[in-house]
Amino acid sequence: MSAVENVQAALARIERDNARVNAFTAVLAERALARAAKVAPDAPLAGLVFAAKNLFDIAGIPTTAGSKIRKSAAPAAEDCILIRRLEAAGAVCVGALNMDEFAYGFTTENSHDGACHNPHDLTRIAGGSSGGSGAAVAAGMVEASLGTDTNGSIRVPSSLNGIFGIKPTYGRLPRTGSVPFVASLDHVGPFARSATRLAEIYDVLQGPDPMDSCQLAKGVDPVLPGLGGGIAGLNIAKLGGWFEGPMTDAARGAVASVAQALGATATVSWSMAEAVRAAAFLITSSEGGALHLPELRTQYEDFEPLTQDRLLAGSLLPAAWVNHAQRVRAAGRDAMAAIQREFDILIAPATPTVATPIGQEELVLDGVRMPLRPSMGLYTQPISGIGLPVVTVPIQNAEGAMPIGVQLIGRPWQEDVLFRAARVLEQAGLCSAPVAPAFAS
Amino acid sequence: MSAVENVQAALARIERDNARVNAFTAVLAERALARAAKVAPDAPLAGLVFAAKNLFDIAGIPTTAGSKIRKSAAPAAEDCILIRRLEAAGAVCVGALNMDEFAYGFTTENSHDGACHNPHDLTRIAGGSSGGSGAAVAAGMVEASLGTDTNGSIRVPSSLNGIFGIKPTYGRLPRTGSVPFVASLDHVGPFARSATRLAEIYDVLQGPDPMDSCQLAKGVDPVLPGLGGGIAGLNIAKLGGWFEGPMTDAARGAVASVAQALGATATVSWSMAEAVRAAAFLITSSEGGALHLPELRTQYEDFEPLTQDRLLAGSLLPAAWVNHAQRVRAAGRDAMAAIQREFDILIAPATPTVATPIGQEELVLDGVRMPLRPSMGLYTQPISGIGLPVVTVPIQNAEGAMPIGVQLIGRPWQEDVLFRAARVLEQAGLCSAPVAPAFAS
Repeated sequence: MSAVENVQAALARIERDNARVNAFTAVLAERALARAAKVAPDAPLAGLVFAAKNLFDIAGIPTTAGSKIRKSAAPAAEDCILIRRLEAAGAVCVGALNMDEFAYGFTTENSHDGACHNPHDLTRIAGGSSGGSGAAVAAGMVEASLGTDTNGSIRVPSSLNGIFGIKPTYGRLPRTGSVPFVASLDHVGPFARSATRLAEIYDVLQGPDPMDSCQLAKGVDPVLPGLGGGIAGLNIAKLGGWFEGPMTDAARGAVASVAQALGATATVSWSMAEAVRAAAFLITSSEGGALHLPELRTQYEDFEPLTQDRLLAGSLLPAAWVNHAQRVRAAGRDAMAAIQREFDILIAPATPTVATPIGQEELVLDGVRMPLRPSMGLYTQPISGIGLPVVTVPIQNAEGAMPIGVQLIGRPWQEDVLFRAARVLEQAGLCSAPVAPAFAS
Repeated sequence: MSAVENVQAALARIERDNARVNAFTAVLAERALARAAKVAPDAPLAGLVFAAKNLFDIAGIPTTAGSKIRKSAAPAAEDCILIRRLEAAGAVCVGALNMDEFAYGFTTENSHDGACHNPHDLTRIAGGSSGGSGAAVAAGMVEASLGTDTNGSIRVPSSLNGIFGIKPTYGRLPRTGSVPFVASLDHVGPFARSATRLAEIYDVLQGPDPMDSCQLAKGVDPVLPGLGGGIAGLNIAKLGGWFEGPMTDAARGAVASVAQALGATATVSWSMAEAVRAAAFLITSSEGGALHLPELRTQYEDFEPLTQDRLLAGSLLPAAWVNHAQRVRAAGRDAMAAIQREFDILIAPATPTVATPIGQEELVLDGVRMPLRPSMGLYTQPISGIGLPVVTVPIQNAEGAMPIGVQLIGRPWQEDVLFRAARVLEQAGLCSAPVAPAFAS
């Protein structure tokens, strides 16, 4: 099919299905058709249709970042760098996607734009904060999407929607043209329904951007050339300790099956997980709160009710706490580096449970009662806290059951190894990301 | 001369001269002679004698970081990574060097260890915080030294002692085994009396360290192979605006002569200098204060009287201010990146004046009265605040006059270009770093 046909098909599906899913906050039919008409058939991503979390600049529409406050902002003057790179490679952006306000949340129950619904069960959450990015791909409205991950916001929706996603090494991909949340922790990355497609997209997204001086990657490390290389010779272990905490049997089983398929027999423990998670909480509320302090002072009532108090509290924290939290992160990285000298890949659950019902406030796991929303990041937050790359792979559970994801965690800058393992799991038939059954046709 | 002879000569000079300069806080005769005896004559740095600011771990002695509080600390178990790398290349460490307490200062008027004296005029300061590192090299007691630079602490002593020094790109060299001060701003680097020697040392210091996850450099970019490459084709400009602020004629003249020698005709202005400097002040006192908060609570009276109040005040700052300061730094980097697209090297004064008398509190420059100690960093602090690499080159003024340095500022990760320019200036006879006259024989 041509790029134009692909875009037409995507627009038709969005028209038909989005009302049930609420993944899109803006659909760009005219722009997408015009750009599709110009796609060279031999472009590397020719005809790939994607959409982007609404914190990425899309020329001509306001970048709302899920907020009421930014709804009347001036339209973006140009596309963000990641959209520019994808479209230069022949992909076409068809719209902007629902998210937790300012990326602060794990459920995409957005009070201004409405909750995003999980295509596998519309009564359930799509996860967050990149919920629209996960749901749009799982519902088959687009083939791929862009999201961001500060504490788990790519990995949680990957897991709950049963798709592939990558949170690259901190500093790998440029953030230029996206609305920041927590500069110390923000990562950008793509979602897709196959490991190979994800790798193709990821390679197009790579590359230094002189306008993003916070980007740390100096060059490009393509993953496609080695994608079929298999996992022979890799040392792979399961993360124990904190990562064997409260979770459902589905989560536990998913980790076990991935560990078995990858031949991981060892279980290693990283004692800093809980401390790094605590540090990430402090840094998140503090940097996020400071960033939004001007509007917190003047438009407090316009903020997301689910998070306004956390932002305000964060803006009041003493710097000594936050500085200490940064030192805890550094110590956590060092302790993990010692573990990773021996292991190429570490396996951990992505979420402690499959998607839960929209509106649910609490979770009881293994007899432990906990607040649901923050707990979705129980196993993702310590890992982003130290900036490691993670590919989340989806396990589709038995008919009628919800999917769940597993984190494949690598050494800094070694995304290639994770893609190889994801491809092995996909080829073995263990991990797959079909369109959700109710949206399959 | 053999390594053993070099070490013997250095120990003799230290014995003869250190009482006047007060550069050393520990001399390691036995260790140095034993190591020198094992140096292979063909090692790349065979026979180079150096010393290290006393915040670098040296096995067997406490790493005091210029403080009273750490004088009774346990001796370091092993050498820091930079000393290990230098000694593996045939260099020999002969001791630890005087500094401002916890690296917080620009004058090395250390109340516990005594002030360090400038070898060009013993009544004057050696600069700081790596004052001992600058003075020991300028007095000819060692050929090279190691220091750190958070806001100017390599460049200020380079300038005031008339020697070469490099503050590499933030994240270039590993900090493992050194006492931190401000993780967001700390850089490590060497001093020497020639650009070529500095380049040889710098190349040996490079390389990733898996134990330092805060190090950003992924590989090694040797500068020696291209050192003689000259400056043809480089675009070089003078920094105007903030960097043409209050200074002595000596400082102004040094900048003008370097600009002329490098063919810099353009003057460019970076509007964020003052804001980045303010941000660096806040981040420094806040991170430094938080780091030392436990001892500030229990041993306040044991801190350096010149800085104890700043550390305490910094520990009380709200995180919102510090987070804002970090965003100012990022904006400053972005604005400078736009300037640096056009220019390979930017020239700026290193210090606003030559070394001033020990004990002096105020400075009057161009009719502006200012506190002396912080003002020594007027022109260095904005540059380290955005992490750019700087080679400081020395201008020896007329007989009896004090030397002064000039900053050659490069793009991130492009230290090689700066070394080439320093070598051109050295070969042209404009920049040189002889042993101070009073210590020359």
